[in-house]
Amino acid sequence: MIGAAVIGMGYWGPNLARNFATADGAQLVMLCDKDRRRLEKISRQYPAAQVTDQVAEVLENKKVDLVAIATPVHTHYQLARQALTAGKHVLVEKPLTGNVAEAEELVDLAAKHGRVLMVDHTFIYHPAVEKIRDLIKRGELGDICYYDSVRINLGLFQHDISVLWDLAPHDASIMEHIIGKPVRWVQAAGARHAGQPVESMAYVTVQFEDNILGHMHVNWLSPVKVRQIIVGGSKRMLVYDDNLVTEKVKIYDRGVELHSIEGIHQAMVQYRMGDMYAPAISTDEALRRAVQHLLYCIREGKSPLTDGAAGLRVVRILDGAQRSIANGERIML
Amino acid sequence: MIGAAVIGMGYWGPNLARNFATADGAQLVMLCDKDRRRLEKISRQYPAAQVTDQVAEVLENKKVDLVAIATPVHTHYQLARQALTAGKHVLVEKPLTGNVAEAEELVDLAAKHGRVLMVDHTFIYHPAVEKIRDLIKRGELGDICYYDSVRINLGLFQHDISVLWDLAPHDASIMEHIIGKPVRWVQAAGARHAGQPVESMAYVTVQFEDNILGHMHVNWLSPVKVRQIIVGGSKRMLVYDDNLVTEKVKIYDRGVELHSIEGIHQAMVQYRMGDMYAPAISTDEALRRAVQHLLYCIREGKSPLTDGAAGLRVVRILDGAQRSIANGERIML
Amino acid sequence: MIGAAVIGMGYWGPNLARNFATADGAQLVMLCDKDRRRLEKISRQYPAAQVTDQVAEVLENKKVDLVAIATPVHTHYQLARQALTAGKHVLVEKPLTGNVAEAEELVDLAAKHGRVLMVDHTFIYHPAVEKIRDLIKRGELGDICYYDSVRINLGLFQHDISVLWDLAPHDASIMEHIIGKPVRWVQAAGARHAGQPVESMAYVTVQFEDNILGHMHVNWLSPVKVRQIIVGGSKRMLVYDDNLVTEKVKIYDRGVELHSIEGIHQAMVQYRMGDMYAPAISTDEALRRAVQHLLYCIREGKSPLTDGAAGLRVVRILDGAQRSIANGERIML
Amino acid sequence: MIGAAVIGMGYWGPNLARNFATADGAQLVMLCDKDRRRLEKISRQYPAAQVTDQVAEVLENKKVDLVAIATPVHTHYQLARQALTAGKHVLVEKPLTGNVAEAEELVDLAAKHGRVLMVDHTFIYHPAVEKIRDLIKRGELGDICYYDSVRINLGLFQHDISVLWDLAPHDASIMEHIIGKPVRWVQAAGARHAGQPVESMAYVTVQFEDNILGHMHVNWLSPVKVRQIIVGGSKRMLVYDDNLVTEKVKIYDRGVELHSIEGIHQAMVQYRMGDMYAPAISTDEALRRAVQHLLYCIREGKSPLTDGAAGLRVVRILDGAQRSIANGERIML
Repeated sequence: MIGAAVIGMGYWGPNLARNFATADGAQLVMLCDKDRRRLEKISRQYPAAQVTDQVAEVLENKKVDLVAIATPVHTHYQLARQALTAGKHVLVEKPLTGNVAEAEELVDLAAKHGRVLMVDHTFIYHPAVEKIRDLIKRGELGDICYYDSVRINLGLFQHDISVLWDLAPHDASIMEHIIGKPVRWVQAAGARHAGQPVESMAYVTVQFEDNILGHMHVNWLSPVKVRQIIVGGSKRMLVYDDNLVTEKVKIYDRGVELHSIEGIHQAMVQYRMGDMYAPAISTDEALRRAVQHLLYCIREGKSPLTDGAAGLRVVRILDGAQRSIANGERIML
Repeated sequence: MIGAAVIGMGYWGPNLARNFATADGAQLVMLCDKDRRRLEKISRQYPAAQVTDQVAEVLENKKVDLVAIATPVHTHYQLARQALTAGKHVLVEKPLTGNVAEAEELVDLAAKHGRVLMVDHTFIYHPAVEKIRDLIKRGELGDICYYDSVRINLGLFQHDISVLWDLAPHDASIMEHIIGKPVRWVQAAGARHAGQPVESMAYVTVQFEDNILGHMHVNWLSPVKVRQIIVGGSKRMLVYDDNLVTEKVKIYDRGVELHSIEGIHQAMVQYRMGDMYAPAISTDEALRRAVQHLLYCIREGKSPLTDGAAGLRVVRILDGAQRSIANGERIML
Repeated sequence: MIGAAVIGMGYWGPNLARNFATADGAQLVMLCDKDRRRLEKISRQYPAAQVTDQVAEVLENKKVDLVAIATPVHTHYQLARQALTAGKHVLVEKPLTGNVAEAEELVDLAAKHGRVLMVDHTFIYHPAVEKIRDLIKRGELGDICYYDSVRINLGLFQHDISVLWDLAPHDASIMEHIIGKPVRWVQAAGARHAGQPVESMAYVTVQFEDNILGHMHVNWLSPVKVRQIIVGGSKRMLVYDDNLVTEKVKIYDRGVELHSIEGIHQAMVQYRMGDMYAPAISTDEALRRAVQHLLYCIREGKSPLTDGAAGLRVVRILDGAQRSIANGERIML
Repeated sequence: MIGAAVIGMGYWGPNLARNFATADGAQLVMLCDKDRRRLEKISRQYPAAQVTDQVAEVLENKKVDLVAIATPVHTHYQLARQALTAGKHVLVEKPLTGNVAEAEELVDLAAKHGRVLMVDHTFIYHPAVEKIRDLIKRGELGDICYYDSVRINLGLFQHDISVLWDLAPHDASIMEHIIGKPVRWVQAAGARHAGQPVESMAYVTVQFEDNILGHMHVNWLSPVKVRQIIVGGSKRMLVYDDNLVTEKVKIYDRGVELHSIEGIHQAMVQYRMGDMYAPAISTDEALRRAVQHLLYCIREGKSPLTDGAAGLRVVRILDGAQRSIANGERIML
């Protein structure tokens, strides 16, 4: 039985608490937040869990094997460092940290202490993303040409981080996971609105090896909610629309082929307009799967799909994008 | 009665011929193409028009007041120059030219000869775009924050020009027209596929004065056809989906407002989720309106909405994007 | 403070419990179910409420002013009768009863004992339906011409009642409420599938006074989920799509007008294709509003919108439809 | 070469003329209409075809092997009778006639004269409908449970026929063709609006042998255009949305199965939620295929898919529906 503590009872923490409370092989041992009212409220739901407003109590608690951190981004590094140093396994809400140096240090620290460090890139455990990765691994799309995502809606404005660090971690992690190749450069632009000190919209282009182009549009100021990813492959293409309740992923047997024709200077471009199909996709909760994966990795001494290294790769993309927004340059990674 | 000639009987030329043949105040005088079979075919539809495979015959014909050019982009400059020099009014299919210098020269030439030079940025005459411009002019959206467009589909690959010069002129012209402010810089990225020598997808970011961000995604390799423009304003926002048969333009009374609250460090962000409405929009053909506007401008000696200067502004954006794709830099305009 | 008991802890009962537990002016006093495991589970959520598997205990409890019945349809009559006789106010899940005679008796009984009898036709309290009723009352649609609803999806098959008595109460109540006129006749057809003894799909046509036609398509065997209502009016028309998260109700300024033209035998039919708008609609929970309305009616001695008489009118429509399915005749009501 | 004449140059006739003019193996010989202006206009497009306002001239013309009739419904019988009697093959726009007796007589007459009588139920030749029929024939849907169609939009009001005779022939022919079993009864309801003497909306239920339920909703007074057909099968289900440009037909691997479980009184109902796929469907024009099929049948002496007998079956359904609207009874066919 793995004892779990959750630090941070804001928006995401209660979801973590619920999953640790119900997952096989885990026990929800402690809940921590600075705000006593939040603690009281959550305590009623999980009377068996100890509550505290002192992080130190969590770290000193011998029954706590695993610390899940769901606090503001700027506190991730400090809390994760303390937890790893105290010999705990650590789950950190995305993004891992707000800068590259901190992320690198956490990766090293986890290795040094032999502890699991997992970033809660929840979408990686979403059945739809898993289906997409499987399709790509089996070669159903052929060679990947591009990844295009749009993740826009009205609000919620965050005060401490920009839309880039709030929404783009989702797409950066999915994109990086699906493509599975090194990033060459990042280029981005953004804008601030409503008097806010951080970007409320951003466009981020990422070039991977083999000339694969990735692009993310994240926006807190859109009148409509869009959650759409298009992946273009040399054989097939897919669209993942997370707004849909069913048929979230559609695979199109469509493409373009180049044919050289003797005696004709211009090559012929041929279109293939074949069937579309939408595979049945499990309705399992992504976070539930993430937590199960984490528990499995702790028990078996494995590295999670979204380990510290994966979290670091995402932070590098975000950091590159942030710098590119500022200086207008293509940032080599 | 204004005598019109159309050069180029490929995809777009027959549409121009049809509109000049039926527009009040115009007469379709000549049709010109290098391909005699095309001429024969179109001649059956317009038996009253003279046909020729010699541009010179068009330019020498005294009954021709106006030359409409619907040929490959790299021929626009030469043909337009000759026509203006011959004292003809000129309509050029978009984009005006393939580079800035040629566009500048054509603008000068039209001024020097006192002839109307209009670029066929057809969308500017689309009732939906006209409605959007009117809404913005009346202040219904407040201050414009951003313009975001997605114009993607499968094919048709062009051999001589990239997707940037093929599809982005539409959005560059609409965006530039709607925002009505000078461009500060352009930044872009693109990729080539299927062994083609030109980009089949591109992302272009444009910053206008007053920190207004524009973005265009153009793509010939998308499994689905998307024709969507979002305009974010400080008061309202709109979505224009050209794929829809009705309700193409939807205006959302939604937004974000920043409120400072005394004694509280963090400002409060408030969301407004009001009504949506979709104004009735005329089903008039955009090209028909464009041709009528051109004839009006010739008769009245006015400058068209999409005159040479507007065409040049679009070419500057495309040219900047092309350079940014190549060198990864933010190109100041 | 009105003391509430909920009988039946299946699918809907817990929703009632939650709302009585949190509504101002109410106190959740008792929870009743035959199944002790269900009671234990719900008891953990509402430790302050007494639990029992004996209905008699509920009826004898002096602190219980109001009994909410969320049990299988065939038990509604007996339970409601006992509760009213015991001097309790009663809320019954839809439909009120499985036949007309029982519904009539309950209406009489409530009157006799001076107690509030309300049917939980939840949709009547849905902000979207309230908006529609208001629009119609203000004359925005003109005279109502027709009401058409489609409520179809895959499952959930009920064992004791047909799709007619399971899904059609929603539409029968909305339709009857919105139109507000007496029903003249009902005509229906249905089919049974998968070896079930009850209809899994049905089409019900209802003619109201003034030649207003209503129609309901209910189906447990549809591959897609549809929740759509169209209301045609002489001035405007509306579509209510409950599957949408936002813009659930759209009002179309569209219609047909007949113009007699002198000297022409055929009258001219003219179409009006005006604006569409989607009013902002509250996201309040319908059941929450229903419960608040019930508490208000109990306190003030008012008759609820969905009182016994309204529930009886719905049962009459369903009963007529059931008979028409069987004998193929138009049933006069 | 089969010589074709088209009578009636209103809405549909020009489409027939265009297809006969371009089909292999056919020659457009004559065009006939009472209105001389229409003849002049169409004559310009088909200068090789003879024009006349006298039907007699068409019937006497030896070069005319085939007469296509695209006139108001009440004239179909007389014109088709004359043409068959004159030894011509006949294509009649849907519906074949306005009553059963006339349709029966035409069927007999065609047999007597050994001529092809085809009804232009164009949708039967639509690639989507052909795909659906093939899927069903191959058993992909299992046993058909129901057919549900919605064909609604705003206008166009017809003066001489109701929406039943205008729109329902499409669905009656598709439904009858796909199900391929005898109709047992028809039941319908309708309403008239805007002072018109004919129904502007109607609901028609049809029961086929083997308890298969068909339903059609046709409506000229809907604010939105819907063209949707759902076919429920014991193994799979499909949705055909003709409004979509691509993916018109979607097949859902979804269904319900009944399992008896020993020792449990209630049978278990299980749901299957599998993949969806949308087969690629040809974009060929349905009318083009219909005309090719007709020419083939004339050459080979075959009976068309939509021969007189098929047309008669559709007329029987419409006639039954019309009578049911009037008397409220289930009409046995």
